[in-house]
Parts: sequence; C-alpha cells; structure tokens
Amino acid sequence: MANNSVTGDYIQMDAVDWVPFPEGLCEGPIRWKLLHVSPEAGAWTAIFDCPAGTSFAKHIHMGPGEYFLTKGKMNVRGGSAEGGSTAIAPGYGYEACNAQHDHTEFPEDSEFYMTFLGPLNFIDDDSNTIALVGCSQVLDAWQASGA
Amino acid sequence: MANNSVTGDYIQMDAVDWVPFPEGLCEGPIRWKLLHVSPEAGAWTAIFDCPAGTSFAKHIHMGPGEYFLTKGKMNVRGGSAEGGSTAIAPGYGYEACNAQHDHTEFPEDSEFYMTFLGPLNFIDDDSNTIALVGCSQVLDAWQASGA
Amino acid sequence: MANNSVTGDYIQMDAVDWVPFPEGLCEGPIRWKLLHVSPEAGAWTAIFDCPAGTSFAKHIHMGPGEYFLTKGKMNVRGGSAEGGSTAIAPGYGYEACNAQHDHTEFPEDSEFYMTFLGPLNFIDDDSNTIALVGCSQVLDAWQASGA
Amino acid sequence: MANNSVTGDYIQMDAVDWVPFPEGLCEGPIRWKLLHVSPEAGAWTAIFDCPAGTSFAKHIHMGPGEYFLTKGKMNVRGGSAEGGSTAIAPGYGYEACNAQHDHTEFPEDSEFYMTFLGPLNFIDDDSNTIALVGCSQVLDAWQASGA
Repeated sequence: MANNSVTGDYIQMDAVDWVPFPEGLCEGPIRWKLLHVSPEAGAWTAIFDCPAGTSFAKHIHMGPGEYFLTKGKMNVRGGSAEGGSTAIAPGYGYEACNAQHDHTEFPEDSEFYMTFLGPLNFIDDDSNTIALVGCSQVLDAWQASGA
Repeated sequence: MANNSVTGDYIQMDAVDWVPFPEGLCEGPIRWKLLHVSPEAGAWTAIFDCPAGTSFAKHIHMGPGEYFLTKGKMNVRGGSAEGGSTAIAPGYGYEACNAQHDHTEFPEDSEFYMTFLGPLNFIDDDSNTIALVGCSQVLDAWQASGA
Repeated sequence: MANNSVTGDYIQMDAVDWVPFPEGLCEGPIRWKLLHVSPEAGAWTAIFDCPAGTSFAKHIHMGPGEYFLTKGKMNVRGGSAEGGSTAIAPGYGYEACNAQHDHTEFPEDSEFYMTFLGPLNFIDDDSNTIALVGCSQVLDAWQASGA
Repeated sequence: MANNSVTGDYIQMDAVDWVPFPEGLCEGPIRWKLLHVSPEAGAWTAIFDCPAGTSFAKHIHMGPGEYFLTKGKMNVRGGSAEGGSTAIAPGYGYEACNAQHDHTEFPEDSEFYMTFLGPLNFIDDDSNTIALVGCSQVLDAWQASGA
C-alpha cells in the first residue's frame, strides 16, 4: 500500500506486521509497530504487543506521553501497590515529562497505543544513559527491522 | 475513583459515562469522553462513539491531531473516493496542522481515540468561524455535561 | 542571500526589510518581520517594531507564546496598573495558552521578538472571531507583502 | 520582585544576575540567565553571555530550538566555512530536532536568547551521553547557583 508508511498520513494497522522491540530495551518478546514520526517536534507514535510476563527496561520520559491500553493490564511505576498506577484495559494514562518508570510490567497479555513527545532515556541502576530513544532512533530501529 | 479526572494521570475509561458531543458540532448522536487536557500546550485527548450515519461539522485542525480508529469506518476529507482517506479499524491517521475536514462521516458504528494539539476551528460555508474548540472549551463542555 | 527565508534555518535579520503588520490587527504603523514557520506544529516566530502610541487589537493566544522585549515598554493585559504586566526592556514574558489580551499598548518606541505555538484569535467586543492568525495565515500575509 | 521567577509570567531581565553556566558543558566563562521552564512540554528558555573565545561542548538538540543572537558572532556546526552557519547579530536561527553541534564557538563577545523544546544531549567523542540537560536539569542547575 503506497501510503502505509510512518511518514504518510494513514496506516492500515492490521496490514503492518509486528516486529520485535529492540533487545536491551525490554525483557521478553515485546513487539511493536511504529505508526508515525514527527521529525520537526521530535514526536512519535507506536502500538505495542506485550505478552504476559514481559516488561520494559528502566527509563525516563523526557517529554510527555499518553497511552491507551486496549487489552490486558500494565503496572506503571511499580503499579498501584507501590504508589504508581495499575492500568486495566480500557485505560488511558498521561505520563508527565520526567516521569521515571523503573518497572513497567505486563502480568497479562496486553496491548497499548502510545503517543510520545521527545525521547525516552533508558538508564542503568546508576542513572547513566544506556540509550536515548527519540523519533530518529525509533525510525532507524523500525527500518532496520525490515518494516 | 479519586483520580479519574482529566487533570489527573489515569482514567479508567469504562468507568466514565459517554455524554453527547455538543450540538452544532456534529450531526446525529455522537458521544464522547474527554480523557485529558494539557492546559500549558493547549493539547487534549478524547474518545468518540459515532453511530452509523453520524458526522462531524466542517472544521479545520489548527494544530496536528492523531487518531486511532478502534471500531468501524471513518471517511476523512471526503474519503478515499474523493481524494481523502477512508479509515477502517484498526486504522491510524495523522491529520496535519491546517487540515480541513469538510466531511467526516461514519457509515458504520465506529469508535476512535484522538490526541489534539491546539483548537479545532468549526466553520460555516463561507469559512467564518462558528466555534473555536480548544482545550479550555472542551473542558468547559465536558464539565457542563455533568461529567 | 539564498537561505534567508522563513523555511530555512538562518535569517540575517538586518537584511530583511520591515513590512506593515496587517491592518485590522493593530492600531498605528506596527511593522514586522516573519522569521520562521513550523508547519508541523503550527508554531511561528517574528519580530515586531511598535512606534509609540501603537497597539494590537484584542486577541486570545490559543497556545503559549514567549516574548523578549528588546526596546521600549509594552503594557500587556492592561499593564501592571490594571492587573496585567508592564514589560520594560530588557524584559521576558510568558503568555499562557488562552491568555486574553484586550489591550497591548506601546507608550514608547518598542521592539519585541516572539515565539508562538498555535494561532492568535482576534476577536470583537462580543468575543466573535474576526481573524484566526496561525502559521499558515502569517506566512500568507508575509508573502503577500512582497517579503 | 515577587514575580521575577522562572515559574511566573514576567522576568525583568536586567534585575537578574548572570551566573556561570555549568562546567563541563562549555569552555570558558559562559554565563546564563534561566528565564522560563514549561514542565508540561519539557520546554525552557534562557539567555547566554558568551565572551570571545568561549564555546559550548558537543551536543545534540533532542527537540527544536530557536535562537536570537543579539550581540556578536556565533559559529554553529563549524560555521559557514565548514557547512554550518555563521550567525552575526542581529541573527535568527532554527536548530532542528536532532541537529548535532560539534562546535559552537564565539569569536567575539556575544549574547543570545534561545527557546528550547526538549533536552540537549551532551556527548563525548564516541557519542556517549555525558549529560542530558532538559527543563528539569536546567531548573536544578539554576536553583543550585543561588539564583
């Protein structure tokens, strides 16, 4: 489909294959589809498929992000048991600029759509940057996956 | 739920009732849930329930918007038959700043989630502004509906 | 200079001529230079030359704006005598999304640089929109002036 | 002045003292004044005083930035002799998201005002992140300086 590209205006989402999310940024077989990049503002949009038991590595949102959990359950910032949020589909969340996510875990098969402004700063336990993942890096990763 | 508010960080979406979208901005019984307002940037996020045969009134996006059509079918800018897009769930669309939507029609029962930066400029056939609907106006409309 | 354009990355500001700011949006001979438009986000940047006695017409900022007053004095929202701000060069101001400016007056010869996100909504005394001035409209006005 | 704060709406700029810009991020005695932080979007605004011979360390703009050079001369991305820009006051520049600035040098006493969206990623010669400087970090640095 000529226009089914992250630089176009429309994506038929079920015509795009899931690809593995980059190793080192998650635990377990999380898959994603990159839907859009806005290179001017540094914004990007993606949907994620997160089987039960997967999680994202520790990261800080360097700009605001908004998610729409369409399936399953997501424990954000430790989940509601630890002062964070537990999202249950259908759930909406606003992650503020500078929100730090030490653990983002999926206890059930889950799926969420998310819009991001600016990069994610993946960090180690000493808060050193391991990977800075913004619109340019997600586009490179997406294209490298053969998508 | 104490935190289930458009100024908080999490919304349990199925715990919020649908309310009618303001008259004059649509044809037919479109309903919505306002999920978030970001008053600093003038951004807002909502989900819309659009029964078959409904449509939105003519408007211009004064900033970019992104939609995730989760159910049904949406004809944007006349649909693909007239040079626009026809979105079929699951579909993602990016509406650029200054995109003009003369007709946004739902030929089937449909639902979509959308993030907006800046206001919608609803116009008449002479391009005069009828209503300028930004984060402040959507918040007022949402609160006036008793939500 | 090939690159001295609002779609490029650098403007030699003193190589660009001042042109009159559109009639109806101000009182008196205010002149401006459009420096940049960011069509993706709907942002724009300009510098304004405001002789003593000039003023801008009533408007609402539909997104945030930031000014740097480099010369003179500007009374914003009535000035500090009426609960607004009186800026005296060198002064910096942040005008929040939805800030309404009934009177923006220059009691002295003044100059200010300003970055805008989203449009200005120029209104009449009944709050009806007279002109919605965003990045597309400022670019049209700038090009129409022969700049 | 009660309101002369980076979280307020107006700064009388000449009533704020210059403070040294953090060591490690520049060479030579660059000084700055933080004018505003927008924590929601991760935006920030500052003015910099750069004596002849000073420079900024290697960095990448993770979001767009706009500068207004009010005094002196600034060589951006090597200057026009090496494919970058040489700004001469009064000059305006738009630095795009992901612009990498290996050398930003001031051959004369210079001053510039700049608005930033998102963080600066200061890197070493192997492109490892040394410091990620966004609105939260600049606010911390500013407050630590006693300003």
